Amino acid sequence: MTRDLALLTDLYELTMAQSYFQHRRVESATFSLFIRSYPPDRGYFVSAGLDDVLTYLGDFGFEPSALEFLRGTGLFTESFLDFLAGLRFSGEVWAVPEGRLFFKDEPILEVTAPIIEAQVVETFIINQINLQSLIATKAARCVYAARGRAVVDFSLRRTHGIDAGMKVPRSSYLAGFAGTSNVLAGKRYGIPMVGTMAHSFVSSFDREIDAFRAFVASFPESSTLLIDTYDTIEGAQNAVKVGREMAARGQRLRGVRIDSGDLASLALEVRRILDLAGLHDVKIVASGGLDECDLESFSQRGIPYDSYGVGTRMGVSADAPWFDVAYKLVEYDDRPVLKLSTGKVSWPGKKQVFRVTDDRGRLVKDLIALRGERFSEAKPLLEKVMENGRIIGRRPSLRESRERFAEEFKCLDEAHKAIRSPSLYPVELSPELDSLRDSVGRQLQHAS
Amino acid sequence: MTRDLALLTDLYELTMAQSYFQHRRVESATFSLFIRSYPPDRGYFVSAGLDDVLTYLGDFGFEPSALEFLRGTGLFTESFLDFLAGLRFSGEVWAVPEGRLFFKDEPILEVTAPIIEAQVVETFIINQINLQSLIATKAARCVYAARGRAVVDFSLRRTHGIDAGMKVPRSSYLAGFAGTSNVLAGKRYGIPMVGTMAHSFVSSFDREIDAFRAFVASFPESSTLLIDTYDTIEGAQNAVKVGREMAARGQRLRGVRIDSGDLASLALEVRRILDLAGLHDVKIVASGGLDECDLESFSQRGIPYDSYGVGTRMGVSADAPWFDVAYKLVEYDDRPVLKLSTGKVSWPGKKQVFRVTDDRGRLVKDLIALRGERFSEAKPLLEKVMENGRIIGRRPSLRESRERFAEEFKCLDEAHKAIRSPSLYPVELSPELDSLRDSVGRQLQHAS
Repeated sequence: MTRDLALLTDLYELTMAQSYFQHRRVESATFSLFIRSYPPDRGYFVSAGLDDVLTYLGDFGFEPSALEFLRGTGLFTESFLDFLAGLRFSGEVWAVPEGRLFFKDEPILEVTAPIIEAQVVETFIINQINLQSLIATKAARCVYAARGRAVVDFSLRRTHGIDAGMKVPRSSYLAGFAGTSNVLAGKRYGIPMVGTMAHSFVSSFDREIDAFRAFVASFPESSTLLIDTYDTIEGAQNAVKVGREMAARGQRLRGVRIDSGDLASLALEVRRILDLAGLHDVKIVASGGLDECDLESFSQRGIPYDSYGVGTRMGVSADAPWFDVAYKLVEYDDRPVLKLSTGKVSWPGKKQVFRVTDDRGRLVKDLIALRGERFSEAKPLLEKVMENGRIIGRRPSLRESRERFAEEFKCLDEAHKAIRSPSLYPVELSPELDSLRDSVGRQLQHAS
Repeated sequence: MTRDLALLTDLYELTMAQSYFQHRRVESATFSLFIRSYPPDRGYFVSAGLDDVLTYLGDFGFEPSALEFLRGTGLFTESFLDFLAGLRFSGEVWAVPEGRLFFKDEPILEVTAPIIEAQVVETFIINQINLQSLIATKAARCVYAARGRAVVDFSLRRTHGIDAGMKVPRSSYLAGFAGTSNVLAGKRYGIPMVGTMAHSFVSSFDREIDAFRAFVASFPESSTLLIDTYDTIEGAQNAVKVGREMAARGQRLRGVRIDSGDLASLALEVRRILDLAGLHDVKIVASGGLDECDLESFSQRGIPYDSYGVGTRMGVSADAPWFDVAYKLVEYDDRPVLKLSTGKVSWPGKKQVFRVTDDRGRLVKDLIALRGERFSEAKPLLEKVMENGRIIGRRPSLRESRERFAEEFKCLDEAHKAIRSPSLYPVELSPELDSLRDSVGRQLQHAS
């Protein structure tokens, strides 16, 4: 796959590139990536995906087989194909580091490069930032709703394909998930892995308790028994038997999992059964179609779950499966530009976001400004991460970005983190940016 | 990626496997894949993803680096790791071929193999069949709603990652899409590619008409001008100028594209402008947040679009971003089994689906039966596609599956294809399956 990644693009990126090439339009362009609107019930975004974008840009190039394929389409000239053969990404990138909070309209990433280079990388950049920020944001909502209980990723079977299957555990771990069921994600990203048994294990035995005994014999230190294959209450009673047998051997049953039925009332009943048997330290895990709304409801009602396995609804961000991400030309040949299409207006020029915090570090407001502006009381959010096509600075580890997220998220007011109808975080435009936009808009209305 | 695909699984598949291994549970198991319910407004499903599943099963195996990683977790014994080192998929697979219609509760794929083999492949199989059938079904709805107008895939920037970026064009082409913007999908799958220019091309020039002239100079035979960067009506007038200049040179402007605003009223106005200028054969393409509901509305109102670029909402199946797919153990060691969890009841035994058609070939009803049953008036839907771990029979090409889908879809009643509130297609259980389920259910209630 990696070899051909330059072709993982929209055809129009290449037709536009050929037309730029033929008309000698080789000046520097700046494109700005931002999210135009909040999906329902979103009051913030979590930045993710930059690491993959930097790797892609650093490795960018067309393989001979890719060029051969393009030649066969009949759309491209030999001189343009020769040009593509030598094309590398030589530009500059400013970006919001992974794990930072950002808000509607704020640039997350700005690419400055000869226009062809900045154009042909559009599709991949949007694809990765959209997916990973989407999932990190959804996962942050789950972690917030769980109020300190561990949340783990069970989504691999229903993520949209293999790449999402890897990026979902990475993005959700970044946002505070405690682990993933995905073994390959454990290997590649060093994320803690979780998981013990499925219904099929139980139903392959003649009796549920036989399955439980077999499993704890294999994993005496780390068994979580799935108790809802037939009847959850009888399952809990079978787990109690096995738990007592283990205790008699000096072992400890780690937990039970409930995956169906009325999860709230079952947890109360199962906790009672376990406690009556003296199995106070056996944890109860919930799974089965959960999302942040369920978790919040359980938290508010004190339902005695110790942790949650969250799958499909987080892994596809089911209530909002995409962000309205745009990658817009904002400057060409030192001339600020914008687009006036209905509902899709953009801001011209290279930009920076400045974040104002109070003396306790709490987020107060953001300011979108031109990149050259300075505000003594605010810290810039975008960092220069690539120069002359080379990654600069140290790339933070996933764990570092995860810690940074946890720190900053604590400093965002509860009102913006509400699961339903969060209040809008204040984002202002600098007066300079505002007046630039007005003047560019007026020029365009005369020119068109 | 491919090398490590055996690790792209849930950890519990491997912990269960070790417990099966330690308890010498090596008998043959059959797992059945099916969809438990229709998402809102779905009345049928389109089968897709089998080709990738067969490749995966045929290549299945753990690399030394994968085993090394598993050893490092401390969860697995040396004898189990030795066993994994030699593990291949040696089983049998029956499946609904790609591009066939199927319905709720019907088995799409059944795997029979020693239980460890049949278990550890679960996650990947669900992942691929879920994604590809999800998108093929969503795309079929778009094609149906477009009523003969071409629909093309513009979703790559917002699909969930790279793999979905490839599987979405494949699945939507299978379901009747005319092409994709994704160049790599064009290369890998031979799908026609489409796309010309974006707003950034227009805004990089001082005047819109300069951008149009530059582009048609590069692509005199295949230019579709994007006319909504500033003002769509002025954009149409600029396109008319360029179209006339081309006509004077003996060339023909292929089309214009509208990506924002009130797409219905703009199409009427732009068509009028083009026709007044004698540019009757210049096509109008719509894009910008479209889904099957928009397409149906345009079809019903006779809005003069010639084709549609459908992006995000199709590429993430926005109104229903996952199916409730399950892969359930239905037989172990020749004993039919089932699960009784609340809301998640399954059917025991190896099965077949029989499709009854009338004398004109129209679909009348389906019958879910045990695999050994025969019905003279109905044709079986599942085919044996793998035996002893080897693919058997010829794998149909994507184009063949696409044609088969188009043929069968014509034979499904309009009532089941309705975009809103389709009527349920009749699916019955054979009396033999029904009575097996009752008897297995009764046994389980005694055993638990």
